[in-house]
Amino acid sequence: MHQMDAHGLRAALEEAQIGYAEGGIPIGSALFQTLDVSDSRAVTASPLGRGHNMRVQRDSPTLHAEISALENAGRLKALAYKNCTLYTTLSPCSMCTGAILLYGIPRVVIGENANFRGSEDLLRSHGVEVIVQDDDTCKELMARFIREKPELWFEDIGEVPETDSS
Amino acid sequence: MHQMDAHGLRAALEEAQIGYAEGGIPIGSALFQTLDVSDSRAVTASPLGRGHNMRVQRDSPTLHAEISALENAGRLKALAYKNCTLYTTLSPCSMCTGAILLYGIPRVVIGENANFRGSEDLLRSHGVEVIVQDDDTCKELMARFIREKPELWFEDIGEVPETDSS
Repeated sequence: MHQMDAHGLRAALEEAQIGYAEGGIPIGSALFQTLDVSDSRAVTASPLGRGHNMRVQRDSPTLHAEISALENAGRLKALAYKNCTLYTTLSPCSMCTGAILLYGIPRVVIGENANFRGSEDLLRSHGVEVIVQDDDTCKELMARFIREKPELWFEDIGEVPETDSS
Repeated sequence: MHQMDAHGLRAALEEAQIGYAEGGIPIGSALFQTLDVSDSRAVTASPLGRGHNMRVQRDSPTLHAEISALENAGRLKALAYKNCTLYTTLSPCSMCTGAILLYGIPRVVIGENANFRGSEDLLRSHGVEVIVQDDDTCKELMARFIREKPELWFEDIGEVPETDSS
């Protein structure tokens, strides 16, 4: 993994781990500005914003990790997003994908998509550069959470567990 | 317009008008549960949640009207969304479209899409019933806002005004 991508993904993973420690859904994200236009992987040391899923902590159905990171970055002019990389520990769902497309974020680095595969194809079809790192730490944390609290996970991705739909 | 859809859209429009009075972006939304499975237009008298765009009021880049309505509805089991209509004064952007798809909301009633046309095709391609009312009051309020505060509008939809991109 490129050094700067490792740095960005580490920030996202730290957020996921904070979320897990809070009893929440351990998905984290961070939005970094690109420093060097000739190398999209060269990001600033500090993110514009970082955050984690807040379903449990704030009873929020919309503060997924990526939405939290964007929210914590605050109001930015449209141009600012065009020069960013969004890091996220898990493949983005359709809502977070839509937020990436809304703001025209050109590059997304994903920790893993083994536990959940979101709308990566939609991102790519709009010209977004999508990089999946297949990171073991991200995978293990998420798998552990899904094993421990499957009902919370189903709620977060809007899926009806088989026992509910009968 | 069907009587129940008029009721739902009125709640969304009230939210938009509150937003305008607050100096914000006048887009409103409301999530209603369907009462009668044989008629998807028959919704409950009170919404599960309603809200308006909070970019100005809360410095929020993610609390679009539809996201606010979902947020104000609070945490719901996945099954609850499958039996709802989401009303919104303006055609939903890609983020709000993604939220509708995430939760599997089957029916969306849109006040107007003359001032902005969002991802209606993506909704339809996923089987969502999309109804555009072409409502004059929604259109006039939004057109007035865009005329008064174009820079705020561009920021909200992630578009770079021509003067910024040179």
